[in-house]
Amino acid sequence: MATKKLTPPTKLTDKDTKTLDKLQRLAAKALETVRRGANPTLEIRARTLSNVSFNEQKRIILLGDKTQAREFFNTSMARKFMQMFLVASGCKTLIDEGKTVSIRQMYYMTKHTLRGSNENTFEDQSESDPIIEDLEVGIDVLREELHLFANRRGLVVGSLVVNDAGDVIDLARMGRGGWGIPSICEDDNLRFVRTDAEFVLLVEKQAIFHRLHEDRFWSQHKCILMTSEGQAARGARRLLQRMATELKIPIYVLVDNDPWGLYIYSVLKQGSINLAYESMRMAVPDVRFLGMSAFDYKKFNLGKPAEIKLSKEDIARAEQMKAYPWFQDKKWQREIQGILDHGFKMEVDALLTKYVSFITEEYIPKKLRDRDYLQ
Amino acid sequence: MATKKLTPPTKLTDKDTKTLDKLQRLAAKALETVRRGANPTLEIRARTLSNVSFNEQKRIILLGDKTQAREFFNTSMARKFMQMFLVASGCKTLIDEGKTVSIRQMYYMTKHTLRGSNENTFEDQSESDPIIEDLEVGIDVLREELHLFANRRGLVVGSLVVNDAGDVIDLARMGRGGWGIPSICEDDNLRFVRTDAEFVLLVEKQAIFHRLHEDRFWSQHKCILMTSEGQAARGARRLLQRMATELKIPIYVLVDNDPWGLYIYSVLKQGSINLAYESMRMAVPDVRFLGMSAFDYKKFNLGKPAEIKLSKEDIARAEQMKAYPWFQDKKWQREIQGILDHGFKMEVDALLTKYVSFITEEYIPKKLRDRDYLQ
Repeated sequence: MATKKLTPPTKLTDKDTKTLDKLQRLAAKALETVRRGANPTLEIRARTLSNVSFNEQKRIILLGDKTQAREFFNTSMARKFMQMFLVASGCKTLIDEGKTVSIRQMYYMTKHTLRGSNENTFEDQSESDPIIEDLEVGIDVLREELHLFANRRGLVVGSLVVNDAGDVIDLARMGRGGWGIPSICEDDNLRFVRTDAEFVLLVEKQAIFHRLHEDRFWSQHKCILMTSEGQAARGARRLLQRMATELKIPIYVLVDNDPWGLYIYSVLKQGSINLAYESMRMAVPDVRFLGMSAFDYKKFNLGKPAEIKLSKEDIARAEQMKAYPWFQDKKWQREIQGILDHGFKMEVDALLTKYVSFITEEYIPKKLRDRDYLQ
Repeated sequence: MATKKLTPPTKLTDKDTKTLDKLQRLAAKALETVRRGANPTLEIRARTLSNVSFNEQKRIILLGDKTQAREFFNTSMARKFMQMFLVASGCKTLIDEGKTVSIRQMYYMTKHTLRGSNENTFEDQSESDPIIEDLEVGIDVLREELHLFANRRGLVVGSLVVNDAGDVIDLARMGRGGWGIPSICEDDNLRFVRTDAEFVLLVEKQAIFHRLHEDRFWSQHKCILMTSEGQAARGARRLLQRMATELKIPIYVLVDNDPWGLYIYSVLKQGSINLAYESMRMAVPDVRFLGMSAFDYKKFNLGKPAEIKLSKEDIARAEQMKAYPWFQDKKWQREIQGILDHGFKMEVDALLTKYVSFITEEYIPKKLRDRDYLQ
């Protein structure tokens, strides 16, 4: 992991300085314990289901305060202890050099064979990923602040000018292509320059984004149009949260009318159980569920060709959703029950059974006009 | 599929006029046959393995001239005959209105229940997709010319200014995000405005694209940097072919050192067996395989941490590749055998075991300098 070439010193952002400080305190504490002749120990908040709960007041999923100790002089923990310092050291290198890498690349950066043995520091990425999460929770930083990213996904266009890494980019002039949402959307790199957008519309499906973009929906309705291309990646979630808090405009979400669509919405809104410790910086509790609603079937007079029979898994998944604490409100119970009562799901694409631009010219405008959304 | 609102007449491009003409001739011919009291028949080139071959001279995979007849008065063919005209009519609507849809959306556009019956025009997208391919082959057009697209994938940045749908976009000013390559990259919408790029570098992996982009590789080396994000989508392939022919600059490809990486390269170069009828408009026979080569392991002194044991499937797949007619040259046989001899594969990300920017500062520059590529 040694850097061969001497990289010129990078100007650290305030955020970088804070993160470096946290990393250094972690190391200093361990070192000081060793010097005292004691057993270095780390206390990390437990990332277990029993330590995750829905916070009614903040309306997001949060990690609790139960902790797990990790000791160096403990055969079952020593390996993980060592791995954590390897990753911490890798992240320090990245911050020092002003670079970012994928979590897979961090696995390679920190993988080596221990001298005089056949033992590898890591055997597989499935070993290094949880260590990264431990480090995030352990010193309370986002992985993005550690200069690490997961794969990016998603596009954005519309009434917004951003400054990203020094480039001023007008998202209203992206042709048909859209701007690829970066993996890391923190404010030290990405800033909002100006906008006259009145809301954000996030659609799950790329092809629906394309339909709306080709119809210049965002121009007619003064909005920002995004697609998450499926489940939203961290970059897209963070960008959405920053739009909600910094631009202070409502965010509407349009997903397929099925349990998976509801789940995508749910993660945007409350965060996920797996990444509960990051909800504070990624969830958007006020995000609005514009559709597709089970009740749109009648409202918009959709017919048989729009129906896709529910599978057993769909039904089981919908029943699970009904039990989620954050879907206990009557309106949500009714919405989820609506899918079950139908016995079928619907894709947003099915709106094309009406006519090509029905979604742009009738469906979304009517939903917005009638304030026909759930929250 | 009726268009409810009267859409203002769209200005047709020359390509649109040609495609409409082909669609209309198809319909006129069928109609004329019916009027004569004869059985309407379509002759379509067979999209079967036995009708596909590697053209040594053009160095691409091509569809042969064997045809299959499709008759209307034939119980086994009538359904497909009817479906083809439904899709043709849907495409005419799209061209008339100047709109494009995904192949899934075309499925919905043409799906309805036949009056007085329970029979649907299409039961599933697996019925409509082959019909679209039939139509492409039948009247010799790309699906993009029929205003249809498959899902988009891929990003591009670098020394190139494009004009897309009227927007002038400087790909050197995309921040960290990159421009999302559109699904349809035909010249009526996307034009190259100016470039001083000396080559194109296409990388398979998003995270490698990110590494090179963050290091401003394209700026130091005057090039265009693309990622296909896995197997290249049609938009990315078409864009690459247009760069090769219109900008007349070499194209280098960097994929993982495994059979899948070689396959990605192979499709870019010769086209694929499934889409043999489109090779002429998508394949780039001169594309250069920059790496990763099995021989890079020694050349760059990579160690054990870079090795991933070959699976049984990897070995079988590599053996298949060795039998491909377009990999018969000694240098390719040696390259593929190199993987088998190693018994392991390598990811480009493994270059980070050296140091973060080794790929940018040493690996690629050395490969380019030494003209160390296969073709």
